[in-house]
Amino acid sequence: MAMDIACRIDHTLLKPEATAEDVKRIVAEAMAHGFASVCVNPVFTGLVGRLLKGSAVKNCAVIGFPLGAHKATVKAMEAVAAVKEGAEELDIVAHLPLVLAKDLAGIRGELAEIVPLAKAANPKVVIKVIVESALLALNVEPAEAEERIAVACRAVKQAGCEYIKTSTGFHPAGGATAQAVGWMKKHADGLRVKASGGIRSYADAQAMMAAGADRLGCSAGVAIVQEALGRK
Amino acid sequence: MAMDIACRIDHTLLKPEATAEDVKRIVAEAMAHGFASVCVNPVFTGLVGRLLKGSAVKNCAVIGFPLGAHKATVKAMEAVAAVKEGAEELDIVAHLPLVLAKDLAGIRGELAEIVPLAKAANPKVVIKVIVESALLALNVEPAEAEERIAVACRAVKQAGCEYIKTSTGFHPAGGATAQAVGWMKKHADGLRVKASGGIRSYADAQAMMAAGADRLGCSAGVAIVQEALGRK
Repeated sequence: MAMDIACRIDHTLLKPEATAEDVKRIVAEAMAHGFASVCVNPVFTGLVGRLLKGSAVKNCAVIGFPLGAHKATVKAMEAVAAVKEGAEELDIVAHLPLVLAKDLAGIRGELAEIVPLAKAANPKVVIKVIVESALLALNVEPAEAEERIAVACRAVKQAGCEYIKTSTGFHPAGGATAQAVGWMKKHADGLRVKASGGIRSYADAQAMMAAGADRLGCSAGVAIVQEALGRK
Repeated sequence: MAMDIACRIDHTLLKPEATAEDVKRIVAEAMAHGFASVCVNPVFTGLVGRLLKGSAVKNCAVIGFPLGAHKATVKAMEAVAAVKEGAEELDIVAHLPLVLAKDLAGIRGELAEIVPLAKAANPKVVIKVIVESALLALNVEPAEAEERIAVACRAVKQAGCEYIKTSTGFHPAGGATAQAVGWMKKHADGLRVKASGGIRSYADAQAMMAAGADRLGCSAGVAIVQEALGRK
């Protein structure tokens, strides 16, 4: 069970004061525990690439993070630069007003400025699109929140991405919920689902996987796996 | 007194769910109250430029915001794109581990990849560098926090920028304090000082100006000016 979880974890360090030393530590932890990836800010993508050379652990960079309010062309340049430095997975923050407004063409249009360029730089790059699911559920009926997620899934799928992802972990509205992950799974249509934000314990991780999460983004991965081992 | 404050305020809207309609509203408010600038995420810089055409209110874009952990080349591309769309002021987040480590050459080196390109696109562009002053004071003696600010001021000055700025308003360590603003003023050596983050009342604004702030970044600008008018 610990291995089942470890291979789904994106070992994540995104706080802006993180140093190269901190990044070296989480790369070592990811290799020791067999995590899916190391997920860092793009200033560290080159370093992670060098450290992970020859490892099965993937190099994951966040793009347009965490607000998603950069120009699409700038997100595209950031994505291409990350891929050229060795990023194998990109977690891109969508421009959130488009997602709130259920603007299918708008979401797809923004991704159309980014995804083809990233895929041209490396056709095997895995792209996850963050839609800040807790924000989508704020002050609206559950049916509206679900519809926003359904539209986002459709746009992300049509744009040729691989994953829909719940949260940055930075928005005051909060992180992943089992309900949002369940809606993503329901409307995924072949997309995989990444739950992130507020996943701090083995119980949290199990709840997200039970709801349909294929990948978990968390900074507490080592503690979660140790907890899972203790309970095996 | 209200006018003295209004002309120092960067009227700010940076939450990621802000829409074009929200931006239009704050542009109208900025023009009505005579604020120094409208400060938004770069996805809206072109819109703000069109709306402010012919106005004395400046168009201010944030760059590498709010984490500062993008590659310097990507921050540079974002800065140039913003200037080309009409940005007259750029608030750039420094890579914070460099500031925490008092790495003068590192801070200056990052800015050297950004500032000349932005100034080449518009020699009159005003550049403010955000150093997240509350983070710099976390868990250290005041003397160490002041020294970090002193080094940052020196690097920002040497890099040819115009302002040192306290905070993004997004870091959990907090926003501007009168103490941090005072240290910036003390070590400014000709730089101007922008206080931002947590400035919500007329009293807050007065305290920052008393400590040496030349500019105030806040989303509560209208309420602050109305409060100032009421007390005049």
